[in-house]
Amino acid sequence: MTGTGERMHALVERLYPLCRSITGDGVRDTLAIVDEYVPLRVHEVPTGTRVLDWTVPQEWNVRDAYIADADGRRVVDFAASSLHVLGYSVPVSATMTLAELRPHLHTLPDRPAWVPYRTSYYERAWGFCLAQDTLDAMPEGEYEVRIDSTLADGHLTYAEHVVPGQVTDEVIVSCHVCHPSLANDNLAGVAVAAFLARELAERTPYYTYRFIFAPGTIGAITWLARNAERVERVRHGLVLACAGDRGDLTYKRSRRGDADIDRVMRHVLSASQRPHRITEFTPYGYDERQYCSPGFDLGVGSLTRTPYAGYPEYHTSADNPDFVSPRAMEDTLAVCREAFAVLDRDRRYVNLSPYGEPQLGRRGLYDSLGGRSDAKQAQMAMLWVLSLADGEHGLLDVAERSGLPFETVADAAEALHAAGLLKA
Amino acid sequence: MTGTGERMHALVERLYPLCRSITGDGVRDTLAIVDEYVPLRVHEVPTGTRVLDWTVPQEWNVRDAYIADADGRRVVDFAASSLHVLGYSVPVSATMTLAELRPHLHTLPDRPAWVPYRTSYYERAWGFCLAQDTLDAMPEGEYEVRIDSTLADGHLTYAEHVVPGQVTDEVIVSCHVCHPSLANDNLAGVAVAAFLARELAERTPYYTYRFIFAPGTIGAITWLARNAERVERVRHGLVLACAGDRGDLTYKRSRRGDADIDRVMRHVLSASQRPHRITEFTPYGYDERQYCSPGFDLGVGSLTRTPYAGYPEYHTSADNPDFVSPRAMEDTLAVCREAFAVLDRDRRYVNLSPYGEPQLGRRGLYDSLGGRSDAKQAQMAMLWVLSLADGEHGLLDVAERSGLPFETVADAAEALHAAGLLKA
Amino acid sequence: MTGTGERMHALVERLYPLCRSITGDGVRDTLAIVDEYVPLRVHEVPTGTRVLDWTVPQEWNVRDAYIADADGRRVVDFAASSLHVLGYSVPVSATMTLAELRPHLHTLPDRPAWVPYRTSYYERAWGFCLAQDTLDAMPEGEYEVRIDSTLADGHLTYAEHVVPGQVTDEVIVSCHVCHPSLANDNLAGVAVAAFLARELAERTPYYTYRFIFAPGTIGAITWLARNAERVERVRHGLVLACAGDRGDLTYKRSRRGDADIDRVMRHVLSASQRPHRITEFTPYGYDERQYCSPGFDLGVGSLTRTPYAGYPEYHTSADNPDFVSPRAMEDTLAVCREAFAVLDRDRRYVNLSPYGEPQLGRRGLYDSLGGRSDAKQAQMAMLWVLSLADGEHGLLDVAERSGLPFETVADAAEALHAAGLLKA
Repeated sequence: MTGTGERMHALVERLYPLCRSITGDGVRDTLAIVDEYVPLRVHEVPTGTRVLDWTVPQEWNVRDAYIADADGRRVVDFAASSLHVLGYSVPVSATMTLAELRPHLHTLPDRPAWVPYRTSYYERAWGFCLAQDTLDAMPEGEYEVRIDSTLADGHLTYAEHVVPGQVTDEVIVSCHVCHPSLANDNLAGVAVAAFLARELAERTPYYTYRFIFAPGTIGAITWLARNAERVERVRHGLVLACAGDRGDLTYKRSRRGDADIDRVMRHVLSASQRPHRITEFTPYGYDERQYCSPGFDLGVGSLTRTPYAGYPEYHTSADNPDFVSPRAMEDTLAVCREAFAVLDRDRRYVNLSPYGEPQLGRRGLYDSLGGRSDAKQAQMAMLWVLSLADGEHGLLDVAERSGLPFETVADAAEALHAAGLLKA
Repeated sequence: MTGTGERMHALVERLYPLCRSITGDGVRDTLAIVDEYVPLRVHEVPTGTRVLDWTVPQEWNVRDAYIADADGRRVVDFAASSLHVLGYSVPVSATMTLAELRPHLHTLPDRPAWVPYRTSYYERAWGFCLAQDTLDAMPEGEYEVRIDSTLADGHLTYAEHVVPGQVTDEVIVSCHVCHPSLANDNLAGVAVAAFLARELAERTPYYTYRFIFAPGTIGAITWLARNAERVERVRHGLVLACAGDRGDLTYKRSRRGDADIDRVMRHVLSASQRPHRITEFTPYGYDERQYCSPGFDLGVGSLTRTPYAGYPEYHTSADNPDFVSPRAMEDTLAVCREAFAVLDRDRRYVNLSPYGEPQLGRRGLYDSLGGRSDAKQAQMAMLWVLSLADGEHGLLDVAERSGLPFETVADAAEALHAAGLLKA
Repeated sequence: MTGTGERMHALVERLYPLCRSITGDGVRDTLAIVDEYVPLRVHEVPTGTRVLDWTVPQEWNVRDAYIADADGRRVVDFAASSLHVLGYSVPVSATMTLAELRPHLHTLPDRPAWVPYRTSYYERAWGFCLAQDTLDAMPEGEYEVRIDSTLADGHLTYAEHVVPGQVTDEVIVSCHVCHPSLANDNLAGVAVAAFLARELAERTPYYTYRFIFAPGTIGAITWLARNAERVERVRHGLVLACAGDRGDLTYKRSRRGDADIDRVMRHVLSASQRPHRITEFTPYGYDERQYCSPGFDLGVGSLTRTPYAGYPEYHTSADNPDFVSPRAMEDTLAVCREAFAVLDRDRRYVNLSPYGEPQLGRRGLYDSLGGRSDAKQAQMAMLWVLSLADGEHGLLDVAERSGLPFETVADAAEALHAAGLLKA
C-alpha cells in the first residue's frame, strides 16, 4: 500500500456529507474540494439552456428540512443526512397528520434500517426518505413538515481537468457528481479520477486526457451538447463509477463492443489475473448511456467494481464511507493506470522490410549464437512485431496473438522503430 | 386444447384414403377438400410444359389394381390402400407366376407388417407394394395381376391461397400434396397450413402470405417457373412437412443459414422453451431444396416435427392417422403463429434523436421518480430500441441483445414511433 | 508397410554423416545424393550477392577438427560427428590450457551424454560442441586445438525439383538442408520430400509442384529474392521438417490462418482420424517464417511431427537415425499425399442450372425409384455440389458442409461437369 488508497478514502469522507444533486451548491462545493487535488475548470450553464433533446433545469438548493413530532423533536432531519430529502423537492411548510404525510414518505420495507435515495427531477414533488424503522416508530398524529428549499433559475455546474498529451486526440474519463451522501456511488469514482489525473500529469501522455466531473445524465448531455467539435477528437473513454466497494472489478463494454478501450480493458484485466467480469453494453447504467448513444457511439466503456445496482446497499444510506475500502480504490486506480499505459502505446506500425525477415543480427538486435531453442522474449517480440506490422494489427494485437507481455512487445517495436525497420 | 388440433386431425383423416401422386385426380380431390377450409385458386399446367430444367409429366390415374390368387381372392388390393400400387405404374393385366411377379413387388423385410411407399415417376415401370408378411403367405403358383391405370397427357395440379397483407412483399408457406395414404407426410402439414391461413386472414398481416399446396419437387419447380417475377417479392418462407408426429419440433435452416426466417424460428423456438432441434440446411428433404436452390436462394426454411426420413414409420403404411396427434399439430400451428407474429413486426427503425438519450420523461414515456433500480421492462425496452435503432439492427436483434420479450420490444418501438422518436 | 518407409530411412542414414551448413560441400554432397532419387536443378549463388535484406555469406568448409590431449589423443573429433565443430568456426590451431579453451566449449549440462548443435554464422568465432561427460573427464592442462576450416568467398547452394502440372500455378514444398548430423531435423524432411516428388511425378498433377532443398533462413531468402515473379504463381505451400520422429503430426497454419493449405491440412488430418495437433502461426520455426513474412504472406504452412524445438533430442546428437522411424516417415508422406490429392481437386464450380434442381434422373445421374430414404452417397454428393456451386464455395467446402468424403464430392463434381451441369 502506497497510502494512495487512504488518501482517496479521506477525500471520499470529506465529500460525503455534502448535499449534491444535478444542480446546486452541493456540486459546487464538491468541485471546490476536488480542485484542491487537481485544478478544475468549472463551467456554469444557465437554467433553460437547450442541450441536445433536454433543457437545463432550475437550480435546487436546500437550507433545512425536517419532520418534527408534536413535541418539536425532529424525527427526520436533513442535517443528519442529505438523503432524507427527496431530490428536487419543492418547498413545503405545513402541519399534517401522519396519514396525510405518508404518501410523501419513501422507505425500504425490506431493509428497515436503511434510508433510500430518491429524486424527482422532472416532476414537481416533495418528499422525505427515511428508515422503515423510523416510520414504524412514528405515532399517528400531527407533524410539522418543513423543506426549506429553493428551485429557481440558476445554473448547472460541471468541471473539467485536462492532462495535455503529445497529440490532441483525446481520452475522456467521466464520473458523475450528482449523488448526495453515497460513498461508492460515486465519491469513490470521483476520488479515483482525481488521483488518476494527478498521476497522468507526472509525464506527458500520448493522448490528451480529459476528466469530466458532471452531474449524471443531464451533465453528460450538457457536456456533449457544448463540445460537438471536441467529440470528433475523442478516441477512447471510460466512465468511472462504484469504484470503491470490495467486489471484483467489472468492465462494461462500449456499445461498439470491440472498441480499442474494450480490447485494452479485457487485456489488462485478463493479463493481470485479477478476478473480474466483462459485461456487454446495455443502454442502462451511468453516462456511458450518453457517450454511447447511437449518434455519438464513442468508444467509451464503464469501469466499476460491483456493477450498477448490483449490491443491496446501492442507493441507500448503507452506501457510506465504510462501504468503500482504500484497497479497492487503489486497485481500481491501478487498473486504470495499466489500461492507459497500454492504450497510450498501442500503435499500428508498418514493417519497412516486409519481404523475408530483416537481418536483425547485423543491427545488433539478435543473439549471434544459433542453434539454441531458448530464443529470448525480446527477440520473439521483435519477430512478432515484424510479422504483424502490416498496418492492420496494433501492438495489442501482437501481444494477444503472441502471448507476450504488452510491455515487451511495445519495447520491441520501439527498438525496431529506432533501427529504421518500422514506420509508425 | 381449443379443439383446433382435433379439427386438423379430422381433416387428415378425411384426406387420408385418397390416392395422391404428383398428378391426377387424387390431388384434385385433396385440393377440393382443403378449399372447404380456405378458398384455393387451383392451377392446371399441361403435360409437356417446360418448367425450369424439367417437363411436366403425363397425368397418372388409377381406377383399380390388385393381385389375385388362383382362387380369385385379392391378396393385394388398391382399394385397401393407395400405397399398394407403385406410383406411376403403367397398366398391366396379366397372369404370371409368383416368380415372374416377384421383381415387381416391394416390401420391407425388416418391418414385415408394413407396406412401403414407392414411386417410379420418370422411368416407366409397374409394381406393387405390400407387407412382407403378405408376400410370405403367398404360395408359389399363378396370380392374376392387374393395374387399371392411365398415364396420359393431362395436367399437373397445384393451388394457392393468398392472405393479403399491408405490403406486397410475400411470405410463402409451402407444403407438398403428392403423397398418397401417408398421414404425417404430409397431410398433417397440409392441415396445419390450411388452419394457419385461416388464422392469418382474421387480421391484415404486414406481409402478404401465400400458401402453396403443390406436388413435391415438380410442383415447387412448376410454381417457381411460373412465378419468376413474384419470386422477387418473396422475403421469407417456410416449408411445412411432417407436422403431426409426437416428436420434438425441428427447424431446418435456409441455405443462407442466417435469413430472417432462420433467426425468427430460432428465437421463437428458444424463447418458448420448447424442446427442439435446429439443423443446418442440406440439399435433401422437401421443397426447400427448390426454393433454396442457388439461383433462387430464398430465405425459406423447413419446419417439421421429427425431420425428413427420421422415423421408422416414414414412407410406410405405419404413417397413418394414428401416427399423428391433434396436440402435436396444434403445437406446430402455434409455433408458426408465434413465428409469423415476430416476422410481421420485426422492423428496422432509425432513432431520430440519436445524440444522447431523448428525454422520455417529458413525453410521458418514463417514470418520473428517480433513484430506484427496478426500471420497468417497458422502459428498458425503449432504451434498448433507441440504442440500437441505427438502421442496421432490427427489433429481433434488440430482443435478442436485451433478453427482453420480442413483444415488449415491439410495443416499445411503437410507442417511440408514435412519439416521433423513430422513423420506420 | 510398402517398404517406402525403410527406403526413406536408408536415405536418412546415408545423409547423416555429412557436415552440412548454410554453405559448403556438405550441402553439395547432400544434394548429389538426393539427385539420385529425384533429379535436381542445383543453383550456386556467389558470396556477397544481396538477397532481400541479407547478403550471401562466405562459404564454409571443414577438413578436420579436433581437441587432442597432452598424449595426442583426440578427445573431441570432427571425424566422429559433424556436430563437434561450432558451425562457421574460423580456423584455429593452437595449444592452450583447458581454462583458455573452456569459453569455446558448448555442452548440455542437463543432458551430459549429448552433444549440442551450435552455430555462429554471422559473428566470427570458433568453438567445439561436446558432451558434458567428455568435458568432465578432461583434466586441466594443455590441449592441442585445431580447426582446419576455410571461410572464404564461394557460393550458397540450393536445389529445386519441379513436377510439372496441368497449370503453371505452383505448390512449393520446402525443406532445409543446412543441419549437420541431425536426423529428424531435417534429413527426415528431405527424405519425405524426395519420395513425395517421385510419387507426384507418376501422374500429371493439377498444380505444378516445386520442391526446394535449401539452407534454412538464408536459403529460403535467397530463393525468394531470385524468384520474385515466380512467387506470384505460388498458390500453396508446405514446409517439411521434423518429419520422422515418433510423435503425432503437427500442422502449423500459415500466417493467414485460413489459407487453402490450412483448410486442406485440417481436413485431411481430421478426416483421417489421425491423432494430431493444429497450431497457429508463429514467426519462429522453419522457413515458413520467410514465405509468410508480411510482404509475401504466402499460403504456406508447416508440417512436422513433434514441432520445432518440441523434443529433448532437438538440436543434439540424440537426434540420430534411431530417433526417426520408417513408419513415422511413411505416415508423414501419406498425409502429404492425401493433402495434395485434395488440394489438386479442390475447385470452385458454377452450377449452370441453378434455378431449382436440374433433373438428374433424365441424365442418368439419379436412381429412378423414388420413396426410399437411403439415397446413395454419390447422389447426395451431387445435390450438395449443385447446391453450393455458386462460385464461392469450393469442393472442400462441400465436403466439410456435407460431411461426405472429399473424394466422393470430387467424383460427383466431375460427373456433373461431364453432364454439362457445372462449369469450372
